[in-house]
Amino acid sequence: MIQFEYRTKVYYKDVDQMGIVYYARYYEYFEAARTELLKSLGIHVTVIENEGYLLPVITSHCDYKVGANFEDTLVVNTIIKDLPKSRLRIDYEVHRNNFDELLVSGYTMHAFTDKSGRAVKPPKQLMETLKQNL
Amino acid sequence: MIQFEYRTKVYYKDVDQMGIVYYARYYEYFEAARTELLKSLGIHVTVIENEGYLLPVITSHCDYKVGANFEDTLVVNTIIKDLPKSRLRIDYEVHRNNFDELLVSGYTMHAFTDKSGRAVKPPKQLMETLKQNL
Amino acid sequence: MIQFEYRTKVYYKDVDQMGIVYYARYYEYFEAARTELLKSLGIHVTVIENEGYLLPVITSHCDYKVGANFEDTLVVNTIIKDLPKSRLRIDYEVHRNNFDELLVSGYTMHAFTDKSGRAVKPPKQLMETLKQNL
Amino acid sequence: MIQFEYRTKVYYKDVDQMGIVYYARYYEYFEAARTELLKSLGIHVTVIENEGYLLPVITSHCDYKVGANFEDTLVVNTIIKDLPKSRLRIDYEVHRNNFDELLVSGYTMHAFTDKSGRAVKPPKQLMETLKQNL
Repeated sequence: MIQFEYRTKVYYKDVDQMGIVYYARYYEYFEAARTELLKSLGIHVTVIENEGYLLPVITSHCDYKVGANFEDTLVVNTIIKDLPKSRLRIDYEVHRNNFDELLVSGYTMHAFTDKSGRAVKPPKQLMETLKQNL
Repeated sequence: MIQFEYRTKVYYKDVDQMGIVYYARYYEYFEAARTELLKSLGIHVTVIENEGYLLPVITSHCDYKVGANFEDTLVVNTIIKDLPKSRLRIDYEVHRNNFDELLVSGYTMHAFTDKSGRAVKPPKQLMETLKQNL
Repeated sequence: MIQFEYRTKVYYKDVDQMGIVYYARYYEYFEAARTELLKSLGIHVTVIENEGYLLPVITSHCDYKVGANFEDTLVVNTIIKDLPKSRLRIDYEVHRNNFDELLVSGYTMHAFTDKSGRAVKPPKQLMETLKQNL
Repeated sequence: MIQFEYRTKVYYKDVDQMGIVYYARYYEYFEAARTELLKSLGIHVTVIENEGYLLPVITSHCDYKVGANFEDTLVVNTIIKDLPKSRLRIDYEVHRNNFDELLVSGYTMHAFTDKSGRAVKPPKQLMETLKQNL
């Protein structure tokens, strides 16, 4: 299992008139979280893209339990459990900093494509790095 | 079945450096689409909220098949299939205007709560309107 | 003077915990408004870009007088007053639909560049169309 | 002069199809930056709001010189130069981390109001803290 804790903070831009983080914003946190998970393994998305690979999202899912508020610091526990075959799954669990309570959980599924959008095999370096760390 | 076609257009703000709509943006389209579906039935979310009800999203899900591009006009076919008990499910199917191909499909699940976040029965007027139109 | 009325509607995604449209969102409305102004003259930004031109924003400015609320329909009066030399200025005035009161006003300034970011002369077709309509 | 360096990182969510940060996104960075500047002085916006004060933006302005790219780390130098009378002005200068080149500069002007939107005198604690640190 590969795990990374991404921290972010809630600002006005994120919060709706119910006073909680707008539901779509979590997907932006997830994107930052997985970019940082990969970076923690030495993989820069920019480099992968320069090598001609894209990892488009093919599924996104989120369950909302408790709303986060303005000026909350959030911890997004970001997890890869399995070596991808044709698809990479990443899981996310969002807590307030130093609190046990789960606010939100979700996942994203990613394909591997070339720049024209055709499915390709996962980039070798990514696969080897994942294998070493799982 | 209740059905509504919400139209929106893709601008620079929506599109990422792959040249396609950023995955989280579809949830913003979905929110506008369900607001307009309800309005087409004579239900204004603002009025529901003024009566003390909130309809927070408790689950969101999206499957991405084909990317939408800048200046595309999108049609979000928005569907309520079942009368809600404790939860309302809304389905969405996104096409380009005048094209058959399905780009994206998804759904949201909504709870009914009061302003303090406690689960309550669905607002009567909403239930009756849904019943009449299903 | 070239003028175009762009209509948009305020949804949850736009509104902050003060219950008014978040200040940065107006710039997204402005972007949609100027895209539609140009389209009303027969100019598609996508076509301009395919011909190798970009119109990056070099200045943006906004004055906020009255906050817009959820489910408001907004009219963005979008204006080009002068033929651009090296820069194109576009002005915006935001009202609620059917109300006189000015909510927000602003402007954007745009450069003309090629895809590598170098300043170029404005595209001919754009200049001629603006000249004919000013 | 009060000064604070806010750091943020550019993700896919921020970048448009020109491959640079979308112009409106800088205003989101500015909001986070000023929230952290105030926090560095011991002032939490949440506390100010709980005391009945709002600091709505009345003017926003931005000049764009060089585009920031995906995975850039940005430093937003955030500056208060003068003690506010009826309006607080905050200036922002955005650089890439460890690079001199100025990418973007801007400012925001803020009013002081109560929750109903009426202009009020600036909150005392905020004024004293600013006075001590200017």
